[in-house]
Amino acid sequence: MSISSSVVNAKLLKVKGLEKGDHDDLLVVEEPLEIQIIYLKDSEWVRKSISVTMRTPGNDFELALGFLFTESIITNFDQVKNIAYCTNVKPEEEGNVVKVEMKEGVEIDIKKLERYFYTSSSCGVCGKSTIDAVMTNACQPVIPNKPVVDPKLIIELSDRLKKAQTVFKYTGGLHASGLFSSDGELMLMREDIGRHNALDKLIGASLHQGLVPLEDTILLVSGRVGFELVQKSIRAGIPMLVAVGAPSSLAVQLAKEAGMTLIGFLRGDHYNVYCGRERLK
Amino acid sequence: MSISSSVVNAKLLKVKGLEKGDHDDLLVVEEPLEIQIIYLKDSEWVRKSISVTMRTPGNDFELALGFLFTESIITNFDQVKNIAYCTNVKPEEEGNVVKVEMKEGVEIDIKKLERYFYTSSSCGVCGKSTIDAVMTNACQPVIPNKPVVDPKLIIELSDRLKKAQTVFKYTGGLHASGLFSSDGELMLMREDIGRHNALDKLIGASLHQGLVPLEDTILLVSGRVGFELVQKSIRAGIPMLVAVGAPSSLAVQLAKEAGMTLIGFLRGDHYNVYCGRERLK
Repeated sequence: MSISSSVVNAKLLKVKGLEKGDHDDLLVVEEPLEIQIIYLKDSEWVRKSISVTMRTPGNDFELALGFLFTESIITNFDQVKNIAYCTNVKPEEEGNVVKVEMKEGVEIDIKKLERYFYTSSSCGVCGKSTIDAVMTNACQPVIPNKPVVDPKLIIELSDRLKKAQTVFKYTGGLHASGLFSSDGELMLMREDIGRHNALDKLIGASLHQGLVPLEDTILLVSGRVGFELVQKSIRAGIPMLVAVGAPSSLAVQLAKEAGMTLIGFLRGDHYNVYCGRERLK
Repeated sequence: MSISSSVVNAKLLKVKGLEKGDHDDLLVVEEPLEIQIIYLKDSEWVRKSISVTMRTPGNDFELALGFLFTESIITNFDQVKNIAYCTNVKPEEEGNVVKVEMKEGVEIDIKKLERYFYTSSSCGVCGKSTIDAVMTNACQPVIPNKPVVDPKLIIELSDRLKKAQTVFKYTGGLHASGLFSSDGELMLMREDIGRHNALDKLIGASLHQGLVPLEDTILLVSGRVGFELVQKSIRAGIPMLVAVGAPSSLAVQLAKEAGMTLIGFLRGDHYNVYCGRERLK
């Protein structure tokens, strides 16, 4: 992500105690991105708008790819024929509408799409049935007991991610997702104003590079960790998820069910392991 | 919100440097909530599921009400005949499905509902058209130059909100929205794992209590502030929005357009005023 597209200048008034002064600062950019899919159905090409997400521009194709994959609309990168920005839009919308064209023969389950937006009674609205649905859609099960890492390594991940974050340094306004190898090397990092988008961009990039399922990796996310981040991580086969913030009840339940290691409150030299402690030496 | 329904016990492993130990702790609860509306259309009662949101249980009726209002599906509390939990659900889903029944004669714009989920090309996918859409749907314009407050008051809001937060103290995992009078008295506070939900609960409560439009108030939110939080605040007529975290570019643009005061990075005795400085003495 280039710095230029993801931040803008702003004039603001800084207040400190009784002092006030005009300052220039940078803001993180937020713009809507529409994701459209184009696929063949009954010998006709269908175009469907499936999502609008507020995101920070940059890595938009990876975001679209990651979103389609983590929402189980596609199962692998080979199903995609082409990704491009729509050009038949108003000038001010250029760069904000992405179309993903599927290869012939790729079946799109429209019911699954609709379930994502409008639930039906069959979806179930409780933790248990939500978890069941995720487990059914998981790309493949998390590999048991792999990787096994030194507990001290976890402590170092946060600094390594911060060093790689470019936009956050200037704005303080971005979430980051960082993918590490099991020996602690940063493989990929993506930033976005939305934590789900940061992870979708990272998973989209991994998919594009043929890295999925992400066995033998550790994912670090900058904020709190709820159900959806765990869901997306499981879908990509990530065995260890580390968050700087707190996990939710459903995040822990789902991680346990999937056999994933979930770590939260990574601060300084300490952290909490909510499940999957067998992956720590 | 009662503490009991919004937290659960968890067993975890605490790691601090080279030490490890078993601990008990509390997790914030995350469960899906489905919102259904029931309304009369062409002499027939229609039931429609319009949203599933991951939320912390508690104040669910306020959440449903606030969501319907801030998404411009209803315009006032008088349109609502009844709000209740669905009882014709599986036992494990009880308390997770809310139905909002409209009075006869209340027209529901299904197009608006669909626009919320699937965008259409007429919606526009750029900052400018997004802002235009919000301004059209705003409940009423923010009152110019009102309230005018002492800049020192802003600094005190954060501590006042923290003192009132119950669940956050135990879990560190919740967002809060606090509504203050212009002399700094805390009027309402709501917590949720999702920042949008915390604000929807607060606005739903305000609507129920006949306080909307929220003239002469200050809203404090615990996290970062993006487009949607500003959108919801404008809809409720809130003139001053203060965030502990960073604002996005689109949040600032929209706040400017609406004549709202937007403050960010409230930390200790300092903060940044991004627009609407005329409301500070």
